[in-house]
Amino acid sequence: SSFEYVKLFERSDVLLPQCWPVVRIDGRGFHRFSDVHGFRKPNDDRSLGLMNKAATSVMKDFKDVVIAYGQSDEYSFVLDKKTNLYNRRESKILSNMVSLFTSCFTFHWSEFFPTTPLKYAPSFDGRVILYPSKEVLRDYLSWRQADCHINNLYNTVFWALVQEGGLTPNEAQVKLKGTNAGGKNEILFSQFGVNYNNLSQLYRKGTVLMKALGSNLCAAGDGDKPSDTILSLNEDIIRDDFWKAHPEILRDEGENLAKKNQQ
Amino acid sequence: SSFEYVKLFERSDVLLPQCWPVVRIDGRGFHRFSDVHGFRKPNDDRSLGLMNKAATSVMKDFKDVVIAYGQSDEYSFVLDKKTNLYNRRESKILSNMVSLFTSCFTFHWSEFFPTTPLKYAPSFDGRVILYPSKEVLRDYLSWRQADCHINNLYNTVFWALVQEGGLTPNEAQVKLKGTNAGGKNEILFSQFGVNYNNLSQLYRKGTVLMKALGSNLCAAGDGDKPSDTILSLNEDIIRDDFWKAHPEILRDEGENLAKKNQQ
Amino acid sequence: SSFEYVKLFERSDVLLPQCWPVVRIDGRGFHRFSDVHGFRKPNDDRSLGLMNKAATSVMKDFKDVVIAYGQSDEYSFVLDKKTNLYNRRESKILSNMVSLFTSCFTFHWSEFFPTTPLKYAPSFDGRVILYPSKEVLRDYLSWRQADCHINNLYNTVFWALVQEGGLTPNEAQVKLKGTNAGGKNEILFSQFGVNYNNLSQLYRKGTVLMKALGSNLCAAGDGDKPSDTILSLNEDIIRDDFWKAHPEILRDEGENLAKKNQQ
Amino acid sequence: SSFEYVKLFERSDVLLPQCWPVVRIDGRGFHRFSDVHGFRKPNDDRSLGLMNKAATSVMKDFKDVVIAYGQSDEYSFVLDKKTNLYNRRESKILSNMVSLFTSCFTFHWSEFFPTTPLKYAPSFDGRVILYPSKEVLRDYLSWRQADCHINNLYNTVFWALVQEGGLTPNEAQVKLKGTNAGGKNEILFSQFGVNYNNLSQLYRKGTVLMKALGSNLCAAGDGDKPSDTILSLNEDIIRDDFWKAHPEILRDEGENLAKKNQQ
Ligand SMILES: Nc1nc2c(ncn2[C@H]2C[C@H](O)[C@@H](COP(=O)(O)OP(=O)(O)OP(=O)(O)O)O2)c(=O)[nH]1
Ligand SMILES: Nc1nc2c(ncn2[C@H]2C[C@H](O)[C@@H](COP(=O)(O)OP(=O)(O)OP(=O)(O)O)O2)c(=O)[nH]1
Ligand SMILES: Nc1nc2c(ncn2[C@H]2C[C@H](O)[C@@H](COP(=O)(O)OP(=O)(O)OP(=O)(O)O)O2)c(=O)[nH]1
Ligand SMILES: Nc1nc2c(ncn2[C@H]2C[C@H](O)[C@@H](COP(=O)(O)OP(=O)(O)OP(=O)(O)O)O2)c(=O)[nH]1
Ligand SMILES: O=P(O)(O)OP(=O)(O)OP(=O)(O)O
Ligand SMILES: O=P(O)(O)OP(=O)(O)OP(=O)(O)O
Ligand SMILES: O=P(O)(O)OP(=O)(O)OP(=O)(O)O
Ligand SMILES: O=P(O)(O)OP(=O)(O)OP(=O)(O)O
Ligand SMILES: [Mg+2]
Ligand SMILES: [Mg+2]
Ligand SMILES: [Mg+2]
Ligand SMILES: [Mg+2]
Ligand SMILES: [Mg+2]
Ligand SMILES: [Mg+2]
Ligand SMILES: [Mg+2]
Ligand SMILES: [Mg+2]
Ligand SMILES: [Mg+2]
Ligand SMILES: [Mg+2]
Ligand SMILES: [Mg+2]
Ligand SMILES: [Mg+2]
Repeated sequence: SSFEYVKLFERSDVLLPQCWPVVRIDGRGFHRFSDVHGFRKPNDDRSLGLMNKAATSVMKDFKDVVIAYGQSDEYSFVLDKKTNLYNRRESKILSNMVSLFTSCFTFHWSEFFPTTPLKYAPSFDGRVILYPSKEVLRDYLSWRQADCHINNLYNTVFWALVQEGGLTPNEAQVKLKGTNAGGKNEILFSQFGVNYNNLSQLYRKGTVLMKALGSNLCAAGDGDKPSDTILSLNEDIIRDDFWKAHPEILRDEGENLAKKNQQ
Repeated sequence: SSFEYVKLFERSDVLLPQCWPVVRIDGRGFHRFSDVHGFRKPNDDRSLGLMNKAATSVMKDFKDVVIAYGQSDEYSFVLDKKTNLYNRRESKILSNMVSLFTSCFTFHWSEFFPTTPLKYAPSFDGRVILYPSKEVLRDYLSWRQADCHINNLYNTVFWALVQEGGLTPNEAQVKLKGTNAGGKNEILFSQFGVNYNNLSQLYRKGTVLMKALGSNLCAAGDGDKPSDTILSLNEDIIRDDFWKAHPEILRDEGENLAKKNQQ
Repeated sequence: SSFEYVKLFERSDVLLPQCWPVVRIDGRGFHRFSDVHGFRKPNDDRSLGLMNKAATSVMKDFKDVVIAYGQSDEYSFVLDKKTNLYNRRESKILSNMVSLFTSCFTFHWSEFFPTTPLKYAPSFDGRVILYPSKEVLRDYLSWRQADCHINNLYNTVFWALVQEGGLTPNEAQVKLKGTNAGGKNEILFSQFGVNYNNLSQLYRKGTVLMKALGSNLCAAGDGDKPSDTILSLNEDIIRDDFWKAHPEILRDEGENLAKKNQQ
Repeated sequence: SSFEYVKLFERSDVLLPQCWPVVRIDGRGFHRFSDVHGFRKPNDDRSLGLMNKAATSVMKDFKDVVIAYGQSDEYSFVLDKKTNLYNRRESKILSNMVSLFTSCFTFHWSEFFPTTPLKYAPSFDGRVILYPSKEVLRDYLSWRQADCHINNLYNTVFWALVQEGGLTPNEAQVKLKGTNAGGKNEILFSQFGVNYNNLSQLYRKGTVLMKALGSNLCAAGDGDKPSDTILSLNEDIIRDDFWKAHPEILRDEGENLAKKNQQ
């Protein structure tokens, strides 16, 4: 029709090639959402389970996600640096991934919260960030895992002081102001007999999702082809060990040289 | 933490001021989704009702949406040209609106499809387009409504030929190839006794959502303040009449002069 | 060659249609440049003449510039909102216009500074800004002309105090601190017998460049076709008078309707 | 003033961190410019000398340029991946570098073309491209040097056929159509006794500009600090040798680890 010229106002938003696109989604107003739906404090296994379920679905659908990391109300999806998903169109990638995540979260709600009806529709924001090197990408993931640790330690002590220590939220906040990690560990241990390091890794480390390599799963090797199975781990991804154990995730130069100039 | 520098890789994506941002969402792979869930052809009132429900929820949440238009598996949300939603950050606006729409679609599914369980999580893509003038914005909406008309006329004849005329889909397609609107109307009328113009406006025009003005609703006027009530119409928005009847939707210069330089 | 894939890293940067692109260039480090080349204070007619010469050359080359405005070491070029210059590619427009301006400034230097050899190569920065409406575009130009006025009034009194009043630059600055326009006019008049409003409009208003309409130039009318002649004015462009006298510069809707949807 | 809000229409254009920004400039319409100014064919030493002079001036001014490569009417400037030049604002970097290059080209014209007055102001376009890894950046430079080779070989045979072989340009073009590199070398050798590989490296390889390391210049080592001296080479930069000999140019991880997280 004669109105079609309006399509020209759409802007091209192709992501720079050979950078790793990261899509981070984060629950919108989950402070209120978790309150309204009675999330357990500081961590609710149902909520974490549902987040992981939704993220797993996203990874199964979008095969170019090489690793995902989640904690609290957020999830980060790392796409392969060579991905050609939606021709690397940023809005397409962003909107489709956020939308599918959201839909799965809502769709699977009752499996994880069988006794808590959804009171209103939950939603998530999202953004795409480009990381040009393996090192910076790892620093990104370390940033999120360090954030998990900091928040979780704080929340753990805070809610111990409130729920078991009988402090008001305000008093707990005042007591924690200015304490460092050591101080918080100390309170936990001396006052509540809790050794923070013995808490579930799920809470302390968050969740890593990655593809099970074919070779991991069956002896009759079909090489290194990624299978459809998604592995869920609660490991440290800040230190080198994880990355040494899974070099295929961010495999880079080797493959690069092989496929060179072909992308 | 020392990893926080990775936040610097986030790019600023503020939308140009004083343009109308349009967020258009569109069902991902709804060809398959409508098949799998047995949508009626050519139009399924349940699906259209659910789309409108989700869009109404989005409008109630995001108050700066001044008008929305939906048809088939898509919806367009027009934000006020002066909106300061998320400080006009494109990714925030896009992801939050797509996410809420998706969540509402999934959340309200069973109200509209009480006998059809959702087989998998539906999702939507989205994009933001800027329109710098009222005229082009109207042409955008006209484009979508003209698209509704063209597709609906085609689909109506096509499914009449298949469902009532006994043609195979292939035969129907061949028969319609090269016909213009008149030809299609003719087939409908002569072969099936259907006057296209008597079909539901919901199918032929799509759905317009707009805010009920306070003054529309109660005599005790609180001026022109938009209320929380969303009106749903199935009117022509290509011709001037609609816009003359609702000058407040795209009100522009008048208000501009008043608020000038304050934005 | 096999290296050509690197071209894919170039990003599309098409400017939003139907907005007026403004290219503003500004002398790089002209504080020092004007010192080194002995510019007269507060205004040097040679420098202003050279700026105007370079800008006129740019306008003759880039026919889609509908108006330009210059003052001090800066020039703003307004492109037609329908321009298709370099397919509206931002980098192309920016770089070519900055480059040509710079080259003309250097090339014509000796015509304006016959006794002052160029000591080093002058350069300019540049940026492109989009304005979506006539009103905001006018506000942009008003902003630059108001800036001209403010700076010129300040500089005029400052240099009068220093050059004729015998104050040190520091003393002059202290004396002017906190004065408003009235105060500065007062000093000029009472202390130096200068009526600011009698100073050259070139200094007080800056320079407007626009195309001479064919009809302005010859009786045998070839309609309203812009000729190659560039007019230079030193008028107020903040008030409506200028724009009422020259409606063709930002002509908008009229022409729009005619060419509608054809762009 | 009340007009200052128009500044909000300027868009942030910060370049992605840790990618190498490349600014490539290219003469605007140099086909005509070289004709009008009687450039020698296929290569004019005066023009190449002037290009190199301008590029050297740009490198002296913008210290973050780590290497530059020029051929024909173009020059590419590679900025350090950690550069903070103009806070990595793309328009600032682009416009200032194109402008200075242009100005120097015009300013130094008569030193290289003492008997040919400049007939009109020459200008250059420019663009910024980001390269996220050393490998791709090298491929970019290889692309430009391969382009130099291909064009120069063609031009050399073409003009030999025309100037010495007496062919018309059209006949020469037809004769060369479909020949490969070997074929062109063969014509040169058999028909004109010219061994292409003996031609000046300046023509065959283009020009590399890099910083002289302090240690290269004086024994009394001030470490590896780059001095102000710019070296000009006409070497192969496609093969590894050059890069092995000058690892400091694209030094990456080593330095990275040291400065990690501080950028
Ligand atoms: N009780 C409880 N709350 C949780 C759990 N996971 C997340 N939350 C809540 C705690 C925080 O208030 C909130 C996450 O913080 P955010 O910074 O994302 O804030 P919020 O989502 O409210 O605002 P936003 O829209 O993201 O700016 O979600 C959980 O397992 N249990
Ligand atoms: N039977 C039926 N199908 C519908 C209805 N509304 C939409 N659809 C289907 C028909 C189309 O196949 C599809 C919409 O076309 P699209 O161009 O959006 O294609 P689709 O969503 O498959 O792919 P996409 O992911 O958007 O590229 O949705 C309906 O009311 N009834
Ligand atoms: N004496 C004299 N100086 C002038 C004249 N026109 C411009 N200038 C000088 C005065 C200012 O120091 C300078 C323009 O101010 P800017 O804000 O553009 O600063 P500058 O160019 O030094 O720095 P920049 O690179 O633009 O950030 O140029 C003139 O006619 N006479
Ligand atoms: N005779 C001669 N011509 C040269 C020399 N170096 C460059 N040129 C000319 C040959 C080409 O026509 C032109 C460079 O080709 P371009 O692809 O850059 O085309 P041109 O600058 O005409 O158009 P453009 O504005 O870049 O799209 O410059 C030289 O040393 N001698
Ligand atoms: O999806 P289509 O084919 O209706 O057209 P489009 O939405 O403009 O295409 P895309 O989704 O690829 O932007
Ligand atoms: O939302 P926050 O406060 O955790 O931090 P952010 O996500 O970086 O901020 P924003 O959502 O505004 O981008
Ligand atoms: O250069 P200034 O200070 O007059 O102001 P600006 O041009 O808006 O600042 P910048 O050159 O840094 O964009
Ligand atoms: O100018 P060309 O044809 O050598 O190729 P390009 O520079 O990639 O094209 P453009 O100048 O249009 O970006
Ligand atoms: Mg946030
Ligand atoms: Mg949140
Ligand atoms: Mg969060
Ligand atoms: Mg689509
Ligand atoms: Mg669809
Ligand atoms: Mg659709
Ligand atoms: Mg400036
Ligand atoms: Mg300046
Ligand atoms: Mg200035
Ligand atoms: Mg080019
Ligand atoms: Mg050129
Ligand atoms: Mg060239």
